[in-house]
Amino acid sequence: MSTYIAVDVGGTQLRVATYTEEGVTPHQQARIPTKSSEGQAIDRLVDLIANLWPSHDKVAAIGIAVPGPTNPKLGILYSAPNIPGWENLPLRQLLEDRFGVPVNLGNDANLAVLGEWYFGAARGHHNVLYLTISTGIGGGVICDDRLLLGEDGLAGELGHVTVLPDGPLCGCGQRGHLEALSSGTGIAAFVVEELRKGRPSALKLNPAPNARDISQAAEMGDPLAVEAFARAGKYLGIAITNYLHVFNPSIVILGGGVSQSGSLLTGPMRAILETSALSAEYYKRLTITRAALGDDVGLLGALALARITQREVI
Amino acid sequence: MSTYIAVDVGGTQLRVATYTEEGVTPHQQARIPTKSSEGQAIDRLVDLIANLWPSHDKVAAIGIAVPGPTNPKLGILYSAPNIPGWENLPLRQLLEDRFGVPVNLGNDANLAVLGEWYFGAARGHHNVLYLTISTGIGGGVICDDRLLLGEDGLAGELGHVTVLPDGPLCGCGQRGHLEALSSGTGIAAFVVEELRKGRPSALKLNPAPNARDISQAAEMGDPLAVEAFARAGKYLGIAITNYLHVFNPSIVILGGGVSQSGSLLTGPMRAILETSALSAEYYKRLTITRAALGDDVGLLGALALARITQREVI
Repeated sequence: MSTYIAVDVGGTQLRVATYTEEGVTPHQQARIPTKSSEGQAIDRLVDLIANLWPSHDKVAAIGIAVPGPTNPKLGILYSAPNIPGWENLPLRQLLEDRFGVPVNLGNDANLAVLGEWYFGAARGHHNVLYLTISTGIGGGVICDDRLLLGEDGLAGELGHVTVLPDGPLCGCGQRGHLEALSSGTGIAAFVVEELRKGRPSALKLNPAPNARDISQAAEMGDPLAVEAFARAGKYLGIAITNYLHVFNPSIVILGGGVSQSGSLLTGPMRAILETSALSAEYYKRLTITRAALGDDVGLLGALALARITQREVI
Repeated sequence: MSTYIAVDVGGTQLRVATYTEEGVTPHQQARIPTKSSEGQAIDRLVDLIANLWPSHDKVAAIGIAVPGPTNPKLGILYSAPNIPGWENLPLRQLLEDRFGVPVNLGNDANLAVLGEWYFGAARGHHNVLYLTISTGIGGGVICDDRLLLGEDGLAGELGHVTVLPDGPLCGCGQRGHLEALSSGTGIAAFVVEELRKGRPSALKLNPAPNARDISQAAEMGDPLAVEAFARAGKYLGIAITNYLHVFNPSIVILGGGVSQSGSLLTGPMRAILETSALSAEYYKRLTITRAALGDDVGLLGALALARITQREVI
């Protein structure tokens, strides 16, 4: 039996799990904090993998989900915003040299769509659009049974498209990106700005409300909080409609914490999305659904990558 | 020797040309008006193909570029806005039944990128973004050496993305699409609207200026005309930047008459495009260039489709 090792590098945790040739239940798994006074993250990650290395079975491949722009063809992580020192890191080479098995890596949002397609909500689909909406907005696309990567693996940055020219500032420094309007950060920034203008709201007692606080206030009927989610949902609907025209997917999957805010967000989103496409053909076989894989999506995306690249499908 | 037949269905002309197995110089070609009192377009198209049918050589395949939303997998043209009666037309079946050879069809903008990739400006590239800017805006994408089609072949409608919510009305009925802002029609509509508001301009003597008139006025320094192109270029730059993030292409090709307006349009476009990407990685190996195939792009795209599908690359 061969073993596959999946690694999920997050800003908070480093996770590693081992799997057999089939199935999605880990044989072994472990996690440690990404930041620690006890050495560099890369050294602690290598140790974590070594600790889980099977004593009898052969390791077929390692797949790694990383939280930043990545060139999967070269195996290089360009940057990981929350991990100091991880810039232009040749992660594949480093781990292949250390462990002597094939290593592949991918951006976490790209691997999330791979995981959902291989194991989750998009099984059996050929054209998949995935958006994860949390503090930021990431994305991934399957086109005709292949992961969209682009020339240098930088495709699929679906949160960094301008949907409102000269709109609010995005974390990336540009203005009016979908992420600046519809992410948790974008929703909170809108509320803070409106409170500063003197808008009445139950949220005014909270000096720094986050998306969860705003969601709770909206469920209590607070008009500003309701408007904040409606605005986020509107731009999400505009962006997804654009993506229908660009990709003509058969399934749209929404993941991430903010996507779980329910109809506060998805009501206004669907109102735009379901009435704005060029023709009814775009809706005829379209499913819009929530992500299925939950917190394990990073590991399972990395597992899918490890198994797929061994079979040379990508 | 096998012969390949390429067909370019336009709103104005029906063109047919025959080619040998290699090269892009037609062996024979003919064109007729799309509209005529002498019978239905489909019957006249069949006659035109029959007239050019080689007497000695075997025909390997027919490729057809059609001017509207198309399902290339089913071989159905959903609609051709300028050709009465061409709705849900099973063009592949019709021509395969008549001629007994494989027939494939594609949307003209999709086939334009295929032609440019196979024969033109994008030879040797693996990730190609193509936009044609004329009265409307169409597009096509090559992702990792494959034409982006989507579930029903409706992908690549790159002109029908919202770049200015609640912006000007698009020909499709939605508001703020790239086509409504940056096409020739969009440029002219802006000028007409500004003239109506009383803006001074040399164009006020022209009751219905088109993009060419406005381009000429802009070259003479007319401020309104210059602004009209700058506005179109701005939104084009925003949209192309979005597509860099979505597709990470190595080449962006601009075709269509309006794209030949020179720096009036491309100056403001490049000002946005070259400063707004998420990281310098998107520009490192990026070429921005004009289409190479000119008026024959429809025929050559159809030829590429015929040859490629015979080799089962797509």
